Amino acid sequence: MSDVINLAKELMRRRSVTPDDAGCQHVISERLAKVGFNNEPMFFVDTLNTWSRRNNQPPNVCFAGHTDVVPTGDESQWQFPPFAATEHDGYLHGRGAADMKGSLAAMVVATERFVKKHPNHKGSISFLITSDEEGPFINGTTRVIDTLQARNEQIDMCIVGEPSSTNKLADVVKNGRRGSLTAFLTVKGKQGHVAYPHLADNPVHRATGFLDALCAEKWDEGNAYFPATSMQISNINAGTGAGNVIPGDLEVQFNFRYSTEVTAPQLQQRVVQLLQQHQLPYELSWVHNGEPFITEPGELIDAVQQAIHSQLGYQAELQTSGGTSDGRFIAPTGAKVVELGPRNATIHQVNECVSCADLDNLALIYEGILERLLT
Amino acid sequence: MSDVINLAKELMRRRSVTPDDAGCQHVISERLAKVGFNNEPMFFVDTLNTWSRRNNQPPNVCFAGHTDVVPTGDESQWQFPPFAATEHDGYLHGRGAADMKGSLAAMVVATERFVKKHPNHKGSISFLITSDEEGPFINGTTRVIDTLQARNEQIDMCIVGEPSSTNKLADVVKNGRRGSLTAFLTVKGKQGHVAYPHLADNPVHRATGFLDALCAEKWDEGNAYFPATSMQISNINAGTGAGNVIPGDLEVQFNFRYSTEVTAPQLQQRVVQLLQQHQLPYELSWVHNGEPFITEPGELIDAVQQAIHSQLGYQAELQTSGGTSDGRFIAPTGAKVVELGPRNATIHQVNECVSCADLDNLALIYEGILERLLT
Repeated sequence: MSDVINLAKELMRRRSVTPDDAGCQHVISERLAKVGFNNEPMFFVDTLNTWSRRNNQPPNVCFAGHTDVVPTGDESQWQFPPFAATEHDGYLHGRGAADMKGSLAAMVVATERFVKKHPNHKGSISFLITSDEEGPFINGTTRVIDTLQARNEQIDMCIVGEPSSTNKLADVVKNGRRGSLTAFLTVKGKQGHVAYPHLADNPVHRATGFLDALCAEKWDEGNAYFPATSMQISNINAGTGAGNVIPGDLEVQFNFRYSTEVTAPQLQQRVVQLLQQHQLPYELSWVHNGEPFITEPGELIDAVQQAIHSQLGYQAELQTSGGTSDGRFIAPTGAKVVELGPRNATIHQVNECVSCADLDNLALIYEGILERLLT
Repeated sequence: MSDVINLAKELMRRRSVTPDDAGCQHVISERLAKVGFNNEPMFFVDTLNTWSRRNNQPPNVCFAGHTDVVPTGDESQWQFPPFAATEHDGYLHGRGAADMKGSLAAMVVATERFVKKHPNHKGSISFLITSDEEGPFINGTTRVIDTLQARNEQIDMCIVGEPSSTNKLADVVKNGRRGSLTAFLTVKGKQGHVAYPHLADNPVHRATGFLDALCAEKWDEGNAYFPATSMQISNINAGTGAGNVIPGDLEVQFNFRYSTEVTAPQLQQRVVQLLQQHQLPYELSWVHNGEPFITEPGELIDAVQQAIHSQLGYQAELQTSGGTSDGRFIAPTGAKVVELGPRNATIHQVNECVSCADLDNLALIYEGILERLLT
C-alpha cells in the first residue's frame, strides 16, 4: 500500500468534526519535522492551526488545507463506517476522503519525496493547516494570515488542496473565486388579523414586486475569468404559523456570488435602489464573506498545468466557479493562489470516497509542482 | 349589583380555556331549568355543548354563544388577575368579559325576565352553547347543528352573542359574514448550493412573479352587503436557515375572506390559473373554513334594530366585515342569524374588560328582541 493512502487512512480515522482537529495536525507536524520543517501551532479560541515552514528564503510555496470535516449525518446510512477509512474496489471510503484529508496526505508525501531528492532546494515550503474551514472560518486561516502579516511573513504561491476536480483528476484547477456577499433584509409591515387587512400592512404583499425585480436583475455579464454574478435567495420567512394573522415582518436572506466586474459596495447600492424604487420600509444588514480573487497565468499556473500534463497527459481547465475556500483569505496578501485536489462528486455527502489511484497521482502532481517552482 | 353582572362574574371565575367548559354550562343550565327549559348536554370528543329549549312550537328564537375563552398569555401582564372578575370604575375585568361570558349572562338574565313576564309566550326560546368556538371548531356548534338537523329540529332566528360593537354598545350588528378559504401552496424546486445555481432550481425565484400577480389580483368588487373579497398571505417560508443552500421548496399559506360575488370553487380555479400562467410546479391543498352568509332585512333585523333604538336612542349599522363566528354553521340550516354583543376593543388581549352598564343595557336589548319576536 502506498505512503499516501496509509497517511490518508491515519488522518481519516480521527473524528475531526469542525472545529476539532482530533490530533491530525500533530500527525502531519511529526512527519514534516522529520524532513526539516519548523512547526508552529497557533491555537485561537476553539481552533487549532499549524504553520509549518522549511527554510526562510523566498519564494515561499505554501500548501494550504484543513483537517476538519463536516458532520456525517446518520452513520447508519453509510455503506462503510465514516471514520473507518475502508479501502474497497480501489476507493478509500470515509468522511474527509476527498475533502480533504486525501489532499493533505498527498501534500505531505509529495513534500517528503521532494525534500529527500532536493534537500537543498531553493526557496521555502510551508504548510498552513487549519481545523476551521468547514465551520465559521473565524479562528482558522484568517487568523493565521493575520499573524503572518503582522510579522511580514509572505506566502508567494499557494496550492489549496480543495477538491477542484470534476469528472477526472485535475481536469479543473481553480485559479480564483467569486466574491460572496450576503444580505439580511427585513421588510417592515404591521401585524393584524386577516379579516381586517385595512388595519394591518402585509409586508409580503409589499415585497413581492421588489423580490420579482431582484430575481430578474442582471448584475453583470462576467468576464474572461468569471461567470456572471449570481444572486440566490436562500431563506424567506414571514408569519406566525397561524392562518388568520397577517405577518408583521418579512425576513429575506440572499447571497451574491460576484465577479470582478462589480464590487460589494456597488451590489449593495443597487439593492438599496431597488428597495427604494419599491418604496419598502426595511432594515438591511450585510455580511461580506469574501472578495473575489484571480490568479492570472504566470509561473504558478504554468507549473501546475505542466505538472498535471506531465503526469496525466491532459490539460487542466482553469475555473473560478463554485463555492468559497480559504484561498480568499490568502490571496489578498498578494499570494498567487490555486486550488487543486481530487474529485468533488461525493463531498459533504454520505459515502464520501476518493480514488486511491487519484490520490497517488495527486501526490506526484504536487511533487511535480515543487520540482518546477523550487529547483 | 345587577343580576347580569353577578352571573357574568360567576362564569368569568371559571378557567374555561378552550375546550374546557369548567362548569359554566352547568351554571347556565341550572338557571334556565328554573324557567322551564329542557337542557340537553351534547359531549363530542373533548367538547361539552348544551342545547337548551323552552317550548317546541315555532318560531324558534335561539341565543348562541360559547363558554370557552382564549388563553391569558402571561398573567403578570394583567392589571387584574384574569379569572378574578374584578369590578373597577364601572368595568368588569377579566378573560371572557367581552368574548363572551358577558353576553351569555345578559342572554340568560334577559330570558329569565322575559319568561317571568310572558310565561305563555309564543314560539320557543333556545340556547346553543359550546366550549369550542375559540379552538378548532370541530366538536362544537357544527356537531350540535348536525344533531339538530338529523332530527329535523329547526332554528328560525338566531342571535349570536359575539362582541359586534365597535365604538359604543350596539353601534354595529353583524348580519352576515364573509366566507373564509385557506390555501396551502408548495412551490417545488430543487435544493442545491448557492454557488452552483445551475444545478439547482430556486422555488423562491420561480414564485416571485406568481406572488406579485396573486397580490395584485382584484377578486371582485363586493356588493351591497359585502366588502370586496380580500386575499392575505399569512405565512411564507423557504430555506434551511443556512446561507449557502438554495431551498428545495417554498411554502405559502394564504387566506381569502370572500363575498357572495364569488364562490370558493371560483377562487380556487383562479389561483390554479395564475399558477399555470407562471408555469410553477406546485402542490396545493385547501381548507374551506366557512361559506359566506347574509341575513337580509326582515323580521329579525327589524326586531334587533328596534330593540336597540328603543333602549339606546340610536340606530345600529349592519355590517358583514370582520372574522368568522359560529354563525357560519347555523346560517346554512336556513336560520336567520345576527351577531350582537358588547364592544370588541379588548378581546383576545391582556386586560380584556367590558362596561357593566353596557352589559345591563345588552340584557335589556336582548329582552326587547324577545318581546318583539315572541309576544
